[in-house]
Order: sequence, then structure tokens, then C-alpha cells
Amino acid sequence: MLHDLVMKSRSYRRFYENKEITIDELRCLVELARLSPSSANRQPLKYVLCNSREKNKEIFDTLAWAGYLKDWAGPAKGERPSAYIIMLRDKNIATGMTMDEGICAQSIFLGATELGFGGCFLGAVNRSKLSEVLNLTDNYEISIVIALGHPKEEVILEDIKEDNDIKYYRDEREVHHVPKRSLEELVIDEIETLANRF
Amino acid sequence: MLHDLVMKSRSYRRFYENKEITIDELRCLVELARLSPSSANRQPLKYVLCNSREKNKEIFDTLAWAGYLKDWAGPAKGERPSAYIIMLRDKNIATGMTMDEGICAQSIFLGATELGFGGCFLGAVNRSKLSEVLNLTDNYEISIVIALGHPKEEVILEDIKEDNDIKYYRDEREVHHVPKRSLEELVIDEIETLANRF
Repeated sequence: MLHDLVMKSRSYRRFYENKEITIDELRCLVELARLSPSSANRQPLKYVLCNSREKNKEIFDTLAWAGYLKDWAGPAKGERPSAYIIMLRDKNIATGMTMDEGICAQSIFLGATELGFGGCFLGAVNRSKLSEVLNLTDNYEISIVIALGHPKEEVILEDIKEDNDIKYYRDEREVHHVPKRSLEELVIDEIETLANRF
Repeated sequence: MLHDLVMKSRSYRRFYENKEITIDELRCLVELARLSPSSANRQPLKYVLCNSREKNKEIFDTLAWAGYLKDWAGPAKGERPSAYIIMLRDKNIATGMTMDEGICAQSIFLGATELGFGGCFLGAVNRSKLSEVLNLTDNYEISIVIALGHPKEEVILEDIKEDNDIKYYRDEREVHHVPKRSLEELVIDEIETLANRF
């Protein structure tokens, strides 16, 4: 059931780095993005897949992790992602962000969970450096990096507290806590058919 | 399996308008969006739910349908959506589009398919008029309208042709055809671990 899959699809930042993800598995994830809807059907997103340990290291060096965890520089050696999907916008097809980026990212993310992986969307990327690392031509703009691996941490959703603070945090057991707004806060109006009201 | 669900989640534009969708069902879909990842965990998206026939008509009048079908003004009476989820960005929380819009839209879209519904993301919206229709306060910016209903049309994915035309079209039987780029076109590079190469 989709609810369970969405619930399990948390942002993970520590992995069993030695457990590999194959290029074929990465291709299956991009296939889910390919089959997802696209704004005006333009399909401007392209992908680089990587599970090479050597290249993973170079990609890792262009990423910034978990802005709210000020005393954590990112996953240590041995706990880093074992694969990356780098999402690109092909400016020869269409410029400017649309819904496509998030739609395709979520299809990939849910697919990764179904395969037993976990991941994290990374938007804080040294784009010029990563473009060099990947030898990208000028028509490609890096949208986000999707880091993937076999999760090595526990992530717990919890209700947002009275101070309304949305910053995630780690407790003393290294469990990652993510405060979520309530459904009541998100749904600002319900306009119901008259027939159901009487 | 997620692949089947993604494959079934096509953009539908004609519905059995008399088949209703309940507010509870709409709330379940927003719950999927609520549980999805959010950029820097800010969770700026809010929602208006509507299944009222009277209000649906007012919402419908603010929407433009299927830009590529020049001789089609949108679904006729009796084939219109039976419900809407209007996605809003709360500018008091964060301004500017992020991945959140697409991520949450795709969670809602896949959830709708699982419930037997179908929908369409509508970005061509008369936003000032719809803001009035919904009595929105100034802090809300309309991201997209998600039209929902019980699909009354067939949608077929097909390979893009040699002319590279991505425009969807309807055939003489009113079947909707959507050309999709190939996986080979989308994956521009695969960087594989050396161990697998030898």
C-alpha cells in the first residue's frame, strides 16, 4: 500500500557503504521517473548514474549535508552513499524549474524504498565543481543529487511542538527526529458538496 | 508494485463527473503529501479540498486545459472533475518554488490512482480569479490545481517518433496518446564501479 511506502521513504544520510547498488537498479529507478507526468510533456530531465567508488568520492566532495546539524559534517567514511543519481535539466529542451524535478524525484525515491534502499535529496551542491567531475556539457544544469544506499540509521517522524520549530535533530542515540506539521495545519479549507452536509 | 502504479498514473482530462470523491478521501491524499520529504523540512505547502458541485464549477472556470489540443476547450459538462485539491504555498513560511511542489503532487497523484481515481495537474490557472473564488488571504500563492475524478478516457504512452515531437494528441476514437522519450535518451552517462567492469 502506498501509505506504507511513503511512510518508509524517509531522508537517510548514513548508509552501509559496502552494500552495493547496481547500475541496473539505478536504471529501474530512472524508468519510474520516465513514466511520470511532465509539464507540457516536455520531459527535459536527464540523468547521470554512478556506483563507482572512485567517482562517488569525487561526487561526495561537492555536497553539503544536513544544514540543521551544525556539528555534523556529513557521513563518515564507511557510511557514505553507495550510488548517486544526478538529475539534470537539459536547457536545450526547457529552462527554469517546473514541477518535473519534484515529481520525478519522488518517483525515484519511492522506488528506492521499494528496493530496500534509502536516500536523500541534496540541493546544496557545488554545481560548477560537480559539472567538471561529471564532464557535463554546457546545456546541462544540475537540478539535484539523489544520494542512495542501504540505510544505517533510524528516522522518526514526530508532531511539531508548540514552539513551531521544524528543524530536524539527532538524539543521544543518533536517532534522527523530523518534526512534521499536522494535517489540520496543512488543510486550510474543505468545501463540501451540499448533499453531504445535510 | 510501484512500477504498475506509476504506469497507471496517467494525466486524465475526462471523468465520470457524477461519481463522487469524498472529503475524507481527499484528506487521505493530502496525508501522503504531508508524509513526503520537504526541502529543509520547511513544509510550506497548504491545501484547499473541494468536492462541492457548486464550487467545482467556479474553480473549473479558472482553468485552461490541454494546451496542445487546440480544438478542445476542456472537458464537457458531465465529464468534468468531481473534486479538486488546490495546492498553495504559504509565503509566511517560505517563498519561491522548490522541489516540494512536485514531490507532494506526485504522492497525491499516485495515491489517487491507488484509490481508483485519476487526475491532472493544472498549471494554467487564472490565479487572481481562483484566489477570489477560494477567499484566500494574501499569504497564499496558488502552486497548482490537481483535478480529480473517475477517468473516462484511455491514455496510451508511446515511443517518441523520429521528428522528436513531444506533443500529445487524440486519435479518431478519442484515445489520448502521449509520446515519451526513451530511457536511453534520459540516461546520458553511467559511471560503473571498476569491479563490475572486469
